[in-house]
Amino acid sequence: MPMPRFPAALVEAQAVEVLSAWGMAVPAARVTAARMIEADLRGVDSHGIVMMAQYEEMRGTGYFNMSAQARVARDDPATAVIDGDGGLGHVPSTMACDLAVEKCRTFGLAMIAVRNSNHYGAAGVYALRIAAAGFIGLSGSSVHRAAIVPTFGAEPMFGTNPLAFAAPMRGAPPFVLDMATSTAAIGKIKLAFLHGEPIPEGWAVDEAGAPLTDAEQALAARLMTPLGGTRELGSHKGYGLAAMVEILSAVLPGALATPSRGRTRPSANAEGGYDVGHFFIAMDPGRFRDQGGFDDDLEAMVTALRQSRPRTPGQPVLVAGDPERAAEEDRRENGIPIPEAYLRTLRDVAKRAGAPFLLDGK
Amino acid sequence: MPMPRFPAALVEAQAVEVLSAWGMAVPAARVTAARMIEADLRGVDSHGIVMMAQYEEMRGTGYFNMSAQARVARDDPATAVIDGDGGLGHVPSTMACDLAVEKCRTFGLAMIAVRNSNHYGAAGVYALRIAAAGFIGLSGSSVHRAAIVPTFGAEPMFGTNPLAFAAPMRGAPPFVLDMATSTAAIGKIKLAFLHGEPIPEGWAVDEAGAPLTDAEQALAARLMTPLGGTRELGSHKGYGLAAMVEILSAVLPGALATPSRGRTRPSANAEGGYDVGHFFIAMDPGRFRDQGGFDDDLEAMVTALRQSRPRTPGQPVLVAGDPERAAEEDRRENGIPIPEAYLRTLRDVAKRAGAPFLLDGK
Repeated sequence: MPMPRFPAALVEAQAVEVLSAWGMAVPAARVTAARMIEADLRGVDSHGIVMMAQYEEMRGTGYFNMSAQARVARDDPATAVIDGDGGLGHVPSTMACDLAVEKCRTFGLAMIAVRNSNHYGAAGVYALRIAAAGFIGLSGSSVHRAAIVPTFGAEPMFGTNPLAFAAPMRGAPPFVLDMATSTAAIGKIKLAFLHGEPIPEGWAVDEAGAPLTDAEQALAARLMTPLGGTRELGSHKGYGLAAMVEILSAVLPGALATPSRGRTRPSANAEGGYDVGHFFIAMDPGRFRDQGGFDDDLEAMVTALRQSRPRTPGQPVLVAGDPERAAEEDRRENGIPIPEAYLRTLRDVAKRAGAPFLLDGK
Repeated sequence: MPMPRFPAALVEAQAVEVLSAWGMAVPAARVTAARMIEADLRGVDSHGIVMMAQYEEMRGTGYFNMSAQARVARDDPATAVIDGDGGLGHVPSTMACDLAVEKCRTFGLAMIAVRNSNHYGAAGVYALRIAAAGFIGLSGSSVHRAAIVPTFGAEPMFGTNPLAFAAPMRGAPPFVLDMATSTAAIGKIKLAFLHGEPIPEGWAVDEAGAPLTDAEQALAARLMTPLGGTRELGSHKGYGLAAMVEILSAVLPGALATPSRGRTRPSANAEGGYDVGHFFIAMDPGRFRDQGGFDDDLEAMVTALRQSRPRTPGQPVLVAGDPERAAEEDRRENGIPIPEAYLRTLRDVAKRAGAPFLLDGK
């Protein structure tokens, strides 16, 4: 049975209704909903409207400032720090991207880091926002709840710390890499669970370090391998990348680094927030190349990759972002699919918030 | 039988002798040798003095300018492009690090990219050079010879494109991640071959995509998996990271992107060089935090990682750079070990160059 689909604008309006019913100012709710639905449009279902139930839960903990006023806390020529005031991450991260683009126009390079924030949705959305201005974008985020187990370790120390990179292309959507630094994103385990399927060996482990393939057990244990999976196959690299993202996202702007939560520092910051951090870098190809040089060479490289010999006839070599581009074309045309079970959840979330429910079945 | 060991200064002097006998100016030879021996000191044997035989081979192709005069080709406030003039990569990369540090002092952030270069040794050496100035360092490089096979692909398109990240720590050596974006570095296969050992399944494949475990066959085929190994375990992420490094190293400064070699563009640039590229980013924690804040929080994070519960008692959780730090302590004290077989090779290289051989057995 095909899933019900809804126009992006309607899903976005639903998100605005719930967020503003929770007390978020309408302009902030609009920005947050726009970033959420950009993830849904790109097929990154785990980071779009489906997050609304989790945001409701986080709001319930009180670790969540619905009337947050994000502000620039420190402003230097090519760098800045934004304080998210304990709210959701989408608003300060959008500010950060736009400030990075502005500074990059002047200096050819800019970096903004955000502290005192929360979940910011899909990392790729921000790298793409920078690419849309014609610059190379790089973004990453810490995650308040640890999941990645270090090589040789038995307990989770980092969130799945995403890293996204986007490079603008002439006459085509940007090259965009959007990855968790774990072998698989937790959303993929949730998806397997919803479909009643096992997960591949190597994604998740139990407390003794043995691989888990049952999706429900893996979700309960929440112990993810770093990219690479095992020491022999390079898990120390995935672990190192997760640490790099944590240093740039959390340590650099002064957010609460997740390995320190509940150990050397309490789980929340002094104001009682999760204190998640993000970073955003913008780089201007025009400062390095003459007009068109970067476009020509990136196009040639991507063309060479696409034309390279496939292992299996009929499954061509893809370039980072291809599956998301295909999803976006389909979803802009045919709407965003939402599983029936989640529609029921969303109806309940809206009801509890006192917001209208706009996604009634067809 | 233990390997012969030699003081770092002597190995460095040997490298200077050979490089200058090849026609490299002495100041350039000194810089090149210093970067090579820094790799040896850190235990990155694959990128130190052992490269001399390969440099001799590359010199023989004529794709290699021994009297290169690296120069700043483009200079903007926070960014610059250096042209390596077709020489080895160590000199322009050292210039790039030092220029990045200088610009970072002014702008809190700087990025230098190098084109028309060649092999630059170990990426970590450059990230560490930036960290030694108190800044966060990030570096990567393209590689003229393709080895990484894209997910779904059957032929190699990228070199093992290294990425290194270093963050300064107070009263301790920097945190430093230094990784190939392939599952394993080619040097590790060479090492297995030299020891007559098989390689783990997942590092390398044959032309049909089947895993190779024979080190000799794997060296001959030179088809490396991207970090992640298989699509199921995230090889599209390693492939995407290799592409990101290529875009920043080669496409950005206008070097020859390896996927385009011999396809959309010839293998060498117009001057007949391999035209490898590198990038270097410096970020000043002092622009983001008050005095000491970054140091305190990075120390707390690293301490939490070290103190986290190990999977196996007696094998504590490590932090990126720990094995290299241990190697450096040992080697500064006891000298750099060089296998007998390679000493013989090096003697022949020196002889052919007309340089004195300084590493006679004890």
